[in-house]
Amino acid sequence: MKVDGRHFRTIWLEPDRWSVGAIDQRRLPHEFIIARLVSAEEAADAIRTMLVRGAPLIGATAAYGMALAMHADPSDAALDRAYKLLIATRPTAINLKWALDQMAAALRPLAPSVRGEAAYKRAGEIANEDVGINQAIGSHGLEVIEAIAATKKAGDTVNILTHCNAGWLATVDWGTATAPIYRAHDMGLNVHVWVDETRPRNQGASLTAWELGHHGVPHTVIPDNTGGHLMQHGMVDLAIVGTDRVAANGDVCNKIGTYLKALAARDNGVPFYVALPSPTIDFSIKDGREIPIEQRAASEVTHMSGRTADGRIEIVRVVPEGSPIANYGFDVTPARLVTGLITERGVLRPDHAALASAFPERTGTR
Amino acid sequence: MKVDGRHFRTIWLEPDRWSVGAIDQRRLPHEFIIARLVSAEEAADAIRTMLVRGAPLIGATAAYGMALAMHADPSDAALDRAYKLLIATRPTAINLKWALDQMAAALRPLAPSVRGEAAYKRAGEIANEDVGINQAIGSHGLEVIEAIAATKKAGDTVNILTHCNAGWLATVDWGTATAPIYRAHDMGLNVHVWVDETRPRNQGASLTAWELGHHGVPHTVIPDNTGGHLMQHGMVDLAIVGTDRVAANGDVCNKIGTYLKALAARDNGVPFYVALPSPTIDFSIKDGREIPIEQRAASEVTHMSGRTADGRIEIVRVVPEGSPIANYGFDVTPARLVTGLITERGVLRPDHAALASAFPERTGTR
Repeated sequence: MKVDGRHFRTIWLEPDRWSVGAIDQRRLPHEFIIARLVSAEEAADAIRTMLVRGAPLIGATAAYGMALAMHADPSDAALDRAYKLLIATRPTAINLKWALDQMAAALRPLAPSVRGEAAYKRAGEIANEDVGINQAIGSHGLEVIEAIAATKKAGDTVNILTHCNAGWLATVDWGTATAPIYRAHDMGLNVHVWVDETRPRNQGASLTAWELGHHGVPHTVIPDNTGGHLMQHGMVDLAIVGTDRVAANGDVCNKIGTYLKALAARDNGVPFYVALPSPTIDFSIKDGREIPIEQRAASEVTHMSGRTADGRIEIVRVVPEGSPIANYGFDVTPARLVTGLITERGVLRPDHAALASAFPERTGTR
Repeated sequence: MKVDGRHFRTIWLEPDRWSVGAIDQRRLPHEFIIARLVSAEEAADAIRTMLVRGAPLIGATAAYGMALAMHADPSDAALDRAYKLLIATRPTAINLKWALDQMAAALRPLAPSVRGEAAYKRAGEIANEDVGINQAIGSHGLEVIEAIAATKKAGDTVNILTHCNAGWLATVDWGTATAPIYRAHDMGLNVHVWVDETRPRNQGASLTAWELGHHGVPHTVIPDNTGGHLMQHGMVDLAIVGTDRVAANGDVCNKIGTYLKALAARDNGVPFYVALPSPTIDFSIKDGREIPIEQRAASEVTHMSGRTADGRIEIVRVVPEGSPIANYGFDVTPARLVTGLITERGVLRPDHAALASAFPERTGTR
């Protein structure tokens, strides 16, 4: 999407045709810095240090990391070394393994002399496939927004609430939850986004607000506590969130707090949509209650990073010393609270029959 | 309550029998500093700068401010001057006006020579009345906790979720939502409190966690997003929150985000209680939807104050420049989601009949 008028993806091949550019997301929202990755080691570091984050973007970065490895040394040994290096960066990231397996399968049968070119080609395809999926999500989600706009007076703003960052910064471009929003905005529909701050890591306030603002989409940052009040007062027309995993029955695992917004949406008759690329569906998990919920570091809650008035980045403690912390990363929103799942193959009912019918080739797999 | 073994109120008469001590709440949770107030001007500053906060404590501080004024000069002119000075500090604080009117009514008929002594006496009574109300809330709320403990195995912990700070720091002692918790803890019941961080002002993380920790009550600070997940997993036995205003129909206005927790409690069969002193009931407001919701400064959301690793207090910006903010201070939880109102006259159903029956003398008034 755009950053102050110029189009960016989160990762790209530089004009030299071998090094890789990426937005350094650790510096957002305070600084917009481009990183240049010139080796598999730097790509691995970029994933490990969260210079890049978001499942699809991690996959694309790993793919480009393999290409950088083949550029330096196209031997079998280098291929194996790069695979091991990259897979170890974020062990639980599903797209990471998928992308590396795709790369290895494409490269291993080839003569070393042609692996470099083939690696950049396949990495580019993996990035483009993500963009294609998100564009399709955007098209289907656009219909949802248009249908709601049609119930309002012409030109009236459609107010959309989102939680966390399922934006273009988490993908190669467009994002998942944001794809319909960017499509609607770019077509000239009046949309306005309520951006949940998303404690404790503040991905809403620091990333979603940043990307919407730089693309020019009207938005307002709100504390996570606010969405229910807005829905009670008719100030939210629909919610669209992303997801980390959807169970076979349509239960949605997403950033902690999503469930509370879904409850408020139901209580106030506000449609609640979840946008996702189909690899997020886990047909091996029957029910969302089976999804293990990660507990994360207390420091994410006790400390906050921000910019001082004179421009320094400081980390400050906001919770008293000695108070224990619980930091659950995700919660599960039962399918009964979800209006629809916006996928690359259309908007689906959140149930097993609809998911299996739309993605029959995946029902036997994770 | 206790601070590291020693009993404190939030405000008290110093051993010199004329100056007034108070906890400087602006420095919490990072520093425990006692302020000594020696004039009505200092009492007014303490209220205005939020050295003290919380409706009952503001009332008590204003009362002591009048006593300090009478100590310096018991004339009619000084009485009027102190009243005007103190009432202007927090124009919307209802307890402030109530306490000042109580003081003026007690002092104006008296000869100046006896006003000083009478002023300290009445201020002390106002402080003690608050303590008495909160103790009564604690007794009635204790029965609620005991009834829930009785459904568990002997010695099992009762997990209580609270939002914001309706603790002893907001009152003279005991607090409202915390009074039953302190009572239960002091009696030896195993209680554990889930403390909502309470963005954007973080009163939960900075004040409730501090006071529970220093009194020795087991507790865990959680992001506001977390309560729903905990309730889904049986980790919350009941919720107790405070309130800023209760409508005649039992609708509860409290810190933004309370409604979301009440929805989660209802969805998971968790009892949801609201603790309040009866002056909080506003019989002139029929329905919670009539309660105006204050919008507060964007800076409360965009900036956070905390302590750096080397001990400095710094304010940092956490939201990108240019992103608009909405900061609604309160929301309304419909009475249908409230299990009971814990008042100084017992636990009441959240409806007009129960409120009017318990407080018949107030039904004609605000």
